[in-house]
Amino acid sequence: MRALPGERLLYFGDTAHLPYGDKSPDVLKGYVQNITRFLLSRQVKAIVIACNTASAVAADAVFELTGSLPVVEVINPTVEAAVKHSPRQRIGVIGTLTTIQSRVYRNRILQLSPDAQVVEKATPLLVPIVEEGWLDHPLCPMAIDAYLADERFQDIDALILGCTHYPLLRRHFEDYFRHKSETVSIIDSSAPTVARLAQILESADLLAQMSGTPPKHEFYVSDDNANFRHTATRFLGMPLSLQKLEL
Amino acid sequence: MRALPGERLLYFGDTAHLPYGDKSPDVLKGYVQNITRFLLSRQVKAIVIACNTASAVAADAVFELTGSLPVVEVINPTVEAAVKHSPRQRIGVIGTLTTIQSRVYRNRILQLSPDAQVVEKATPLLVPIVEEGWLDHPLCPMAIDAYLADERFQDIDALILGCTHYPLLRRHFEDYFRHKSETVSIIDSSAPTVARLAQILESADLLAQMSGTPPKHEFYVSDDNANFRHTATRFLGMPLSLQKLEL
Repeated sequence: MRALPGERLLYFGDTAHLPYGDKSPDVLKGYVQNITRFLLSRQVKAIVIACNTASAVAADAVFELTGSLPVVEVINPTVEAAVKHSPRQRIGVIGTLTTIQSRVYRNRILQLSPDAQVVEKATPLLVPIVEEGWLDHPLCPMAIDAYLADERFQDIDALILGCTHYPLLRRHFEDYFRHKSETVSIIDSSAPTVARLAQILESADLLAQMSGTPPKHEFYVSDDNANFRHTATRFLGMPLSLQKLEL
Repeated sequence: MRALPGERLLYFGDTAHLPYGDKSPDVLKGYVQNITRFLLSRQVKAIVIACNTASAVAADAVFELTGSLPVVEVINPTVEAAVKHSPRQRIGVIGTLTTIQSRVYRNRILQLSPDAQVVEKATPLLVPIVEEGWLDHPLCPMAIDAYLADERFQDIDALILGCTHYPLLRRHFEDYFRHKSETVSIIDSSAPTVARLAQILESADLLAQMSGTPPKHEFYVSDDNANFRHTATRFLGMPLSLQKLEL
């Protein structure tokens, strides 16, 4: 919304099936294809798979349905940004269980930078800490310390925050690495993914310009619950109107 | 398995839809009815709704399908145990978001003990802490302290652990209350629920006796993932054989 202010968003949050992070690829592919069919029926001009887990294990399932429609997933843009910002190519990756078990970050990094050293770790407590809103509680840096104390992470010079919840914890990661002698770049998916989307829309001459009236976004969820409303408001920084839609 | 060693278990874990704790009652009713239909098709002699959230919001949806078959949910037996073990009828309840928002514990306690004082709080971080296996990490008592520091909990004399994950944290709750001047009874669902089941089976002359060979249990899951295998092994204290079954 900030980076492409002329674009109208049609958002679908699969709250009936959340969290994706500890479900199997087969189950996730089915969910993601149902969502894709819904978005196609609404004639979107591009699709963003705005979830690391879905991008990691179900992007191909989306591509099967979308033909020549532009589809941006979060892994490739994030990996490119990490490789670019890691002087010694020692890259740490944290994410959900399913993302890490997919080894997709490791594989994509090694495709781009065959000599890179990649260390990966699942950090499943970080999502519920964000959803609980305990960003200022000492428990939050304690969990980050516990995960990053893993000695394989001591020599990294870039860390990929491989989950869309983790950017809300960015300052705690910055604090953690501030005490280290070497600079560690902290890379999250949001900026690289939006930059990729902008580039694709622009080259296809599909980029919407700002008009006088702000675009009318639509937010759909498969299960409308108080917890999601609360979390969504925290992420967006303002209340939003949700419509329930079972697929 | 320990309390009724002659009984053969047919377990269904709805891992494709977990966690139930932050989903809405309508969605959960659908899931629970599908599971009930499966269990009925396998001609079980009794059903235990072994989940506080499902018991809180979807027990009626089970009763709709089961006719005269014995069905035991976890709320009533747990409430009776709490009322019995609370000398001053000041009862705290912790559970998932959906269980607490349902107010089912409050309502059932007040039915049994109209003058009771009930304080309820959702404690959603405790499930992922158990699933992460951080039972011995300082983060675990820190989360419990953070939740119970709520001043409404300072005068309770019984605490209901209203979620099937929380008994694994029992010693941390005991430690927390050990520093208080007054004794606080910690009540979880497992023993009262099994006692109720045994009583019903016995009075219907349905209780299975131990035979020479141990009963052959069956464990079904709607999504077979490594995380659930790991957690199930931790709960059960031994490896188990899971069969995947989509309903």
